[in-house]
Amino acid sequence: MSQDHTPDHTHDHSSCCGGGDHHHHGHMHHEGSEGRADLSGPAESPITVEVTRGSLVESVHRARACIVDAGGHVLARWGDIDAPVYPRSAIKSLQAIPLVESGALDAFGLGDEELALACSSHNGEARHTELVRSWAERVGLRLDDYECGAQVPYDPATAEDLVRRGAAPTAFHNNCSGKHSGFLTTAKHKGERLKGYVRYEHPVQQRILGVMEQMTGQDLFGAPWGVDGCSIPTIGIPLGAIAYAMARIADPVDLPDARSEAVTRIAAAWGRHPFLIGGTGTFDTALMEAAGGAVLVKGGAEGVGCAVIPEQGIGIALKIEDGAARAREVALAALIRTTQALSEAQWARVPHLLTTPLLNRTGTRVGEVRPATGWPAA
Amino acid sequence: MSQDHTPDHTHDHSSCCGGGDHHHHGHMHHEGSEGRADLSGPAESPITVEVTRGSLVESVHRARACIVDAGGHVLARWGDIDAPVYPRSAIKSLQAIPLVESGALDAFGLGDEELALACSSHNGEARHTELVRSWAERVGLRLDDYECGAQVPYDPATAEDLVRRGAAPTAFHNNCSGKHSGFLTTAKHKGERLKGYVRYEHPVQQRILGVMEQMTGQDLFGAPWGVDGCSIPTIGIPLGAIAYAMARIADPVDLPDARSEAVTRIAAAWGRHPFLIGGTGTFDTALMEAAGGAVLVKGGAEGVGCAVIPEQGIGIALKIEDGAARAREVALAALIRTTQALSEAQWARVPHLLTTPLLNRTGTRVGEVRPATGWPAA
Repeated sequence: MSQDHTPDHTHDHSSCCGGGDHHHHGHMHHEGSEGRADLSGPAESPITVEVTRGSLVESVHRARACIVDAGGHVLARWGDIDAPVYPRSAIKSLQAIPLVESGALDAFGLGDEELALACSSHNGEARHTELVRSWAERVGLRLDDYECGAQVPYDPATAEDLVRRGAAPTAFHNNCSGKHSGFLTTAKHKGERLKGYVRYEHPVQQRILGVMEQMTGQDLFGAPWGVDGCSIPTIGIPLGAIAYAMARIADPVDLPDARSEAVTRIAAAWGRHPFLIGGTGTFDTALMEAAGGAVLVKGGAEGVGCAVIPEQGIGIALKIEDGAARAREVALAALIRTTQALSEAQWARVPHLLTTPLLNRTGTRVGEVRPATGWPAA
Repeated sequence: MSQDHTPDHTHDHSSCCGGGDHHHHGHMHHEGSEGRADLSGPAESPITVEVTRGSLVESVHRARACIVDAGGHVLARWGDIDAPVYPRSAIKSLQAIPLVESGALDAFGLGDEELALACSSHNGEARHTELVRSWAERVGLRLDDYECGAQVPYDPATAEDLVRRGAAPTAFHNNCSGKHSGFLTTAKHKGERLKGYVRYEHPVQQRILGVMEQMTGQDLFGAPWGVDGCSIPTIGIPLGAIAYAMARIADPVDLPDARSEAVTRIAAAWGRHPFLIGGTGTFDTALMEAAGGAVLVKGGAEGVGCAVIPEQGIGIALKIEDGAARAREVALAALIRTTQALSEAQWARVPHLLTTPLLNRTGTRVGEVRPATGWPAA
């Protein structure tokens, strides 16, 4: 799928990933194989999500996915997990690491809520935008400093309210405004120029690139990259390595002390504030509220999703090949279900996350979005 | 992909489809083959649409498609064209046939514009809804008679205007309200009960089923079906047979006289009123305006698209496997381009239809949606 250089990806069975080595790569262990030749078979095929209507499967989505532990062991995989994937907003938790590690969060007297918002793709509801506004004020940031662009809030009621009031959406309504607040806060704390903080070359993005390299165990120098919806770089990283980074949030034992402490704070904030991560009616918020802290989850654009299961020390990453959000949601739910991190009683409270009903314009259920047969059992 | 019975599909090389035989099937000719075993090879693989960002292909869509003539000859095919596909709104032109053939259109003094609107998935802009309103008034239909459901207009400016005025969207704003006006007009003309006209069993839908059988050359008794977004049945039909029906609009020579006359009037109305078919900023409208009547095109939900090229007597049908509209648009443009129905000068006026730029929230071009390599040359 890549048109570009694929980062080197070795299959190193010799050791788990240790300390602060930012440029060591090859941490992923492929269980039961020495390389691609051995990785054929059913587990290597993409899994699919199907969209039904009446008596037909009308559309089909293909997903690549894996479950990895903090030792870099691939516990389960479906499809190619070595090709680079843009993680988009699914790894905002990793992009928040410098905010904590630099001391910026504490220096400005910011807390758990701001940290959760830095990890969010929020709906632009009042609770989200008010928190961004108070954060900006505390740090001394102006709306003009934000380079993410204005966005109509995802939340339809909030969007309608803006129209009714004749107010234009601003950068604060951008679903990434929490993340950008984190970028600006770190830059301010370190005395860096704010202008251009979204650019690949800026210290803010270079610092994150280093964090990404260490957390994913990849050499990302020369890795393919593109510009995200909010203007920052998004870096192509193998799906397996993205899941590995999530596993290291779940179990940071091998991380250097400062980083271990940072990801522990991030995980706690992420899990404690499901509403701030998304908002009314969003998959991420609903799943985390149902899970009661047992699972951290984050979706990204173009069908990327990540999950962290702290108690099991595992990470999950998936990519819907065609980028569809509807498929990302049920696929991520299905994968999380296999880990038994939520009880069946917990799932029973959010059945629409496992199988999404399709309603027509009169509200009649006419079909559903569901994992196809052949998925691992719960 | 089907979970259901696939309508029988024979490969009959013996004859072209003739007259008014509503239950004869097996009209599709597979060139150079006697059956599926001969149909493998590159032309049998789906074609793909890729979504790029920076230096990577970020997402990929798979398309099945074919180009068929009015003799039922498959001139080109990509992927499985025998499995049933819901044509959704892409075949509104076929659903409009009874409106003309029954005499209802003329009896109520309706014309070309109403007929175009019956074939449309409109934006709900003022020009569309005013035409629906005047049509309903002329026929004596009330808003309550429409069973399609209310819908927020596709056109963002119109939708915002409704919010600003505190007005709720109605069934007239539903993108299918022209089609439903046609259904109701036919029922009224024939003295049928209006209530329940969206149901599979109602004469309005049964009449359309018969038309669909004859035009596609398929026996659709027992065919898989589901409920469309606007509450009417959508019938699973092989993609090749959908393209065949489009070819018969392009070249109705083998149709019975009344039907030939009806499809000729429908094709004329469809081609003369591109704005009514979609509206501001829509693919269908932009492509038909650029084509100046040389191509009729209509998209449907879940990635289905159809095109009619009258001068060449051919029809095109395609299905994006995952249902994505962004892929349907560039795939349909690419297929139409291969027919040379538009000059390259005409394409040059609508380059965004061939390759759609992806902009981020600051308006910067960060990627594009385009046909992957391996497509037939223009």
